[in-house]
Amino acid sequence: MAERLGPPLDEPIFDELAIIGIGLIGSSLARAIRKQNGARWIVIADASDETLARAEALALGDRYTADVTEAVRGADCVLLCAPVGATGAIGRAIAPALKHGAIVSDVGSVKGAVIAELEPLLPTHAKLVPAHPVAGTEQSGPDAGFATLFVNRWSILTPPASADAAAVGKVRALWEAIGANVEIMGAAHHDLVLAITSHVPHLIAYNIVGTAADLEDVTQSEVMKFSAGGFRDFTRIAASDPTMWRDVFLHNKEAVLEMLGRFSEDLTALQRMIRRGDGDGLFDLFTRTRAIRLGIVAQGQETAAPDFGRRGPGENAPGRRA
Amino acid sequence: MAERLGPPLDEPIFDELAIIGIGLIGSSLARAIRKQNGARWIVIADASDETLARAEALALGDRYTADVTEAVRGADCVLLCAPVGATGAIGRAIAPALKHGAIVSDVGSVKGAVIAELEPLLPTHAKLVPAHPVAGTEQSGPDAGFATLFVNRWSILTPPASADAAAVGKVRALWEAIGANVEIMGAAHHDLVLAITSHVPHLIAYNIVGTAADLEDVTQSEVMKFSAGGFRDFTRIAASDPTMWRDVFLHNKEAVLEMLGRFSEDLTALQRMIRRGDGDGLFDLFTRTRAIRLGIVAQGQETAAPDFGRRGPGENAPGRRA
Repeated sequence: MAERLGPPLDEPIFDELAIIGIGLIGSSLARAIRKQNGARWIVIADASDETLARAEALALGDRYTADVTEAVRGADCVLLCAPVGATGAIGRAIAPALKHGAIVSDVGSVKGAVIAELEPLLPTHAKLVPAHPVAGTEQSGPDAGFATLFVNRWSILTPPASADAAAVGKVRALWEAIGANVEIMGAAHHDLVLAITSHVPHLIAYNIVGTAADLEDVTQSEVMKFSAGGFRDFTRIAASDPTMWRDVFLHNKEAVLEMLGRFSEDLTALQRMIRRGDGDGLFDLFTRTRAIRLGIVAQGQETAAPDFGRRGPGENAPGRRA
Repeated sequence: MAERLGPPLDEPIFDELAIIGIGLIGSSLARAIRKQNGARWIVIADASDETLARAEALALGDRYTADVTEAVRGADCVLLCAPVGATGAIGRAIAPALKHGAIVSDVGSVKGAVIAELEPLLPTHAKLVPAHPVAGTEQSGPDAGFATLFVNRWSILTPPASADAAAVGKVRALWEAIGANVEIMGAAHHDLVLAITSHVPHLIAYNIVGTAADLEDVTQSEVMKFSAGGFRDFTRIAASDPTMWRDVFLHNKEAVLEMLGRFSEDLTALQRMIRRGDGDGLFDLFTRTRAIRLGIVAQGQETAAPDFGRRGPGENAPGRRA
């Protein structure tokens, strides 16, 4: 997977850009936008004094403030990078201070609920262009971010029907400048797609780790020691930021419950196959699922190295075959 | 994670060792045992002519045969590395040819069913020491194996009460020579532990990939493009060998159904939290699950690098902080 940024822009897209919330995604954006010359001036706001001080120590922006209203006053573009649950409060705080014609965008993993909250709050002169970069790691906070996080990843824009075309173009250009591929779709469809590719996978990872933690006949020490059989991969996903994920499930309730319902139906069918000893049925499913993996690798969204490339190269190591 | 083999043994543990089934695990064993001088002479058998020819091309052993009966005739130790479902047939074929006092071991992910099948088949002079290395990748076949696969991984021995102590000691020494840690436990407990750390995780990974493949309102192309949000990690697990996993579920039915039942109960509770908007309940679970991850990393069973170390180091990359 290519993970290098291209050459920086000759001219910045925005004069002043405000990032509200400087966690994993916000700080990766600050680093990438700075590196690619996406904005002349970066203002950083965060509700936590500690996080803000850390952002300043890392020199992620040009100005730092705990006051979101103050942060957006001169911004041509405002990027909301706080957990989705804070959208309403931030929207109310920034609305009266927004510069005329300012673009307001975000990075929330849920789009329908964010638009429903923001649209009625923002002044009519502001231009809403919601976005969601499908990228991240299980780590959190400004130290966890890095400039190449979005390279070769998809950023989905879900502009409302009334969206300003020039504003959509600028937001697209910003994501492309930091290495992302851009796709445009409706918010409802986004929420359904992400429910299956991200939200339900996180939910079942959290769930199985919880189940394992509560067992009485298997100790936690045993779970940890023998986790290399598959379980440890779920624990990585289940180590993601709890606040962010709580908000995702509360704000994409309908699509998550819909996809979870299908998952559970399918699991019941699989359970029945095991109970009845239907080896052919199991084999059939286990064969079909390989095709999707191959497609993901072919599309550059994954490394083909076994075990996620955890193993270093060595004699007879996979990937070094002639 | 240290992934180097130690110095080879001065004296081999076995004169002649037969490996029945030369896939990912069998071929990794052949490479590691050869490298560590675990046996003087390695005989390789496989039911597939193509696989056997490939093993010979890779020079994994000293002798190659499609006839398992013939393969074990001179062996001091026989390692069954075929899918668990083939255990009975192989056991019947080798039983009359086993050398007096030969050790018979295996690498099956299920232990109770394997012992129940093998014990009545083997001659009384043979010494059964079942084993299960908790290691692997999603790849299959003799090309996928490598000598360091078992380094710092656990191999669980489940000797029956009647097992020969000297034979258990030799099998333990063989695993330790190729870098594994050895744990001894009862077969029933093994099957319960592995149901939660390996079998159910694989089952739900296969299941969600199947669910995603069958959706009508989300295309497979969308599933692949936006898989970086969590789904792609499940696809790796769901790319594992279908025959091996079919056999695991058919042979560890009881423990898998037991653990699956608990998983489903917990998932139903989680579903109710989402439906009712119980943010505190969700946050509480999502916080608890982090502790298990930390324990796994602390025990050296996982890399702490974000995203499984998929990202290379770079400016401001995680893991390079002072």
